[in-house]
Amino acid sequence: MKIAIFGTGSVGQALAGKLSQTGHSVLVGTRDVAATLARKDNDAFGNPPFSAWIGNHPEVRLLSNHDAAAAAELLVNCTLGNASIETLRSAGVENLNGKILLDISNPLDFSQGFPPSLSVCNHTSLAEQIQQEFPQVKVVKSLNTMSAMIMVNPALIRGDHSVFLSGNDADAKSTVSSILKEFGWEERNILDLGDITTARGTEMLLPVWVRLYGTLQTPFFNFHINTAGNH
Amino acid sequence: MKIAIFGTGSVGQALAGKLSQTGHSVLVGTRDVAATLARKDNDAFGNPPFSAWIGNHPEVRLLSNHDAAAAAELLVNCTLGNASIETLRSAGVENLNGKILLDISNPLDFSQGFPPSLSVCNHTSLAEQIQQEFPQVKVVKSLNTMSAMIMVNPALIRGDHSVFLSGNDADAKSTVSSILKEFGWEERNILDLGDITTARGTEMLLPVWVRLYGTLQTPFFNFHINTAGNH
Repeated sequence: MKIAIFGTGSVGQALAGKLSQTGHSVLVGTRDVAATLARKDNDAFGNPPFSAWIGNHPEVRLLSNHDAAAAAELLVNCTLGNASIETLRSAGVENLNGKILLDISNPLDFSQGFPPSLSVCNHTSLAEQIQQEFPQVKVVKSLNTMSAMIMVNPALIRGDHSVFLSGNDADAKSTVSSILKEFGWEERNILDLGDITTARGTEMLLPVWVRLYGTLQTPFFNFHINTAGNH
Repeated sequence: MKIAIFGTGSVGQALAGKLSQTGHSVLVGTRDVAATLARKDNDAFGNPPFSAWIGNHPEVRLLSNHDAAAAAELLVNCTLGNASIETLRSAGVENLNGKILLDISNPLDFSQGFPPSLSVCNHTSLAEQIQQEFPQVKVVKSLNTMSAMIMVNPALIRGDHSVFLSGNDADAKSTVSSILKEFGWEERNILDLGDITTARGTEMLLPVWVRLYGTLQTPFFNFHINTAGNH
């Protein structure tokens, strides 16, 4: 498939690399192509700049959000939560409508420092706000509950661990599920929670994720919903 | 230990039964002893009334919140989130001060029906509100992320699964951890997240728990933080 990824950070890089490796044609969208390529410093989290990454991935094309969205069949939101809606608007609603949007963003609010809180939660979610703003887009929330390395390489964690799906369109969830399987996710570990309102639950996993990162001192962990009953 | 449990619902019953079975002296506190014993109907979730339960547990004593707290060395909050602070006030702050309070409640808000939202979250938590209201109580949040049967019998789920600890007092967390081990929890599955503010994270697991209950159609599941790296 021709897939556009919004976001040039570590999540965007991980998704672009893996989707390309699994045979998809990958376009990465950004607000300002020249500015993205000119940035030579690591980001606030210590990740190398996109300009360094794309040098090793010549098969991936960097375009404006608009051009990437226009050319793509499926869209992936890997932007920061507070930039997501603006980014999608900049892509042009006519380039989004009717398409699947895999939304991996989280509404993390770092304005009070670390640990972040959520800028929206409980009675709504970022995924629901995106779905509301773009009613003709098939939003599927997934992969937002783990670090980028694990999203695209679940075998980094031994044994079973879980990935969640939320969305209103069953076919769109089925397409995203196929992509998850290409990444190495086992069918039994893909949990469809229901409609897009269930994304409240998965976005609200982030506060404990952040604390676990502090306790465990590694991002190499994931939630597993253990259903193995002895009862 | 002499332990007072606030709350006569399914969580209170599960904790009272198990603590008594593991050799503790258990007092259950309630607002109005006569009214609790007079109630003969199942609760809103279909659980049998406390009057039926205590008939099978003659070793457990039902007292007023005040008398139960006054006599106990350790306290357990199993009330509904919206009743927790009022219940603890009714016990008398002089009967709480200096003692450990294991807080298992969740701030579930059913006022808009099912699924519930949280009445507090994100920038605070019920555990923090309790700690703030009773600064001389050693509040330890734990066990609030699973169904009552699993809290007191983790072997109901095969393999590893996790229980979290949040609290400001290391000795208090150590005491609670000992009780968890008496219930059958393995040391490696008891995750100390840090101070009481980390209870935000565990209380915010409830929205996805509720959705998982809907998807899986059983309360026999639990979160496992899978840290088994292949990297």
